[in-house]
Amino acid sequence: VVEGPAGTDDPEALTIAEIEGVPFAGIQFTGERWALADVQLLPPILPSKVVGIGRNYAAHASELGNQVPSAPLLFLKPPTTVIGPGAPIRLPVDSKQVEHEAELAVVIGGKGARAVSREKAMESVFGYTCANDVTARDQQRADIQFTRAKGYDSFCPIGPWIETDLKYADVGVQALVNDEVKQDGRTKDMIFDVPTLVSYVSHVMTLLPGDVILTGTPSGVGPIVAGDSVSVRIEGLGTLTNPVANRA
Amino acid sequence: VVEGPAGTDDPEALTIAEIEGVPFAGIQFTGERWALADVQLLPPILPSKVVGIGRNYAAHASELGNQVPSAPLLFLKPPTTVIGPGAPIRLPVDSKQVEHEAELAVVIGGKGARAVSREKAMESVFGYTCANDVTARDQQRADIQFTRAKGYDSFCPIGPWIETDLKYADVGVQALVNDEVKQDGRTKDMIFDVPTLVSYVSHVMTLLPGDVILTGTPSGVGPIVAGDSVSVRIEGLGTLTNPVANRA
Repeated sequence: VVEGPAGTDDPEALTIAEIEGVPFAGIQFTGERWALADVQLLPPILPSKVVGIGRNYAAHASELGNQVPSAPLLFLKPPTTVIGPGAPIRLPVDSKQVEHEAELAVVIGGKGARAVSREKAMESVFGYTCANDVTARDQQRADIQFTRAKGYDSFCPIGPWIETDLKYADVGVQALVNDEVKQDGRTKDMIFDVPTLVSYVSHVMTLLPGDVILTGTPSGVGPIVAGDSVSVRIEGLGTLTNPVANRA
Repeated sequence: VVEGPAGTDDPEALTIAEIEGVPFAGIQFTGERWALADVQLLPPILPSKVVGIGRNYAAHASELGNQVPSAPLLFLKPPTTVIGPGAPIRLPVDSKQVEHEAELAVVIGGKGARAVSREKAMESVFGYTCANDVTARDQQRADIQFTRAKGYDSFCPIGPWIETDLKYADVGVQALVNDEVKQDGRTKDMIFDVPTLVSYVSHVMTLLPGDVILTGTPSGVGPIVAGDSVSVRIEGLGTLTNPVANRA
């Protein structure tokens, strides 16, 4: 558990409170505390599946030359894409155009979600985290299917933690490359909102505890190259930062 | 462990030998045995990911009006699609055209596979099983992305067991609906063979022990409806049979 002013970007202002147990089954504080700057955070969840939503912001659909979909457009990223804050995004050798996509990620809670209505969908949500839906744009264009382009190891940084209390319906979602703002959207501009997405996905596939839905990216996607530092910053949540490196 | 004549379709001829331990860490026989007809088999593996290969038989690509791809075309089915022999395939209410796709499934072994060469790829394979890559064809056409159409709970029957010794390069792969043969292909007609697929996928995403690759379907795909019984039969391996039912 991270404690400090909500949504701060100042690691100095934050401390980590050690817990016992797992979030979905109740947690207890041990009393131990560390400064955030002194620890290496791991991915805040290891999901059994990561469900992505394509073209969920009109301006982003438009910048890639796509129509706005009439229903949520689903894709999957394999669990092996997931990395935590500070871990390197590794660029595959056979792509010349890897891009960032800043997204609000929804984390499913302990009851999971199977065929839940839009009205009851939020009862299945545990919290929210930042995600970077890293995409090899040239391969996405070539394959049509998104799987390879979005499926490389390290192509789904999430973190830095799970915020259980977020005004998800209208928060700012930004991507920064080397501290320069590249994407700057708001979740109120989603075509399909969070309850609609949870409900829709849960009617196709049962969502298990800890599963993650990436809710789509606003406009402004662009390239990242080795040596860059890329951040996803969500208002009221925090900032997820990852270095970019060539694949070993 | 199932014992009996290789590839038989006669459950009377087969017995189950009980084991202790897990396949990737060494197994021991307990000495207990049952008739296959007296047990309910579960999925022989619960994979962390199921990687599908699209259009890997020229005649099937052609029957859906698609070109033969120049590289393996990857997609993912969520682990929640996996069911075992005898479990019902549940038809979603919002598809009017659910189809069978008989496939040879490759099961990755205990060492996993990360960026393995084609020459070393088979060292990462534990064995083979039958799979039915059930697909809502109308939704596949509508979405372009395959995820929803192939992602419903129960849309990946696998089994009846894992055969560790199979002449994978040239075996018959059939689909039968109510005992009528609908698909009848041979793995030698794959565009990309098994070692090529394992190598290719492993260069994108790390394959973990137990992960499954569906190697594509031959021509002859067609509809299944509630009340049908659909089987995938692979020469030298066995037969996977599932009833078809409406979603509850």
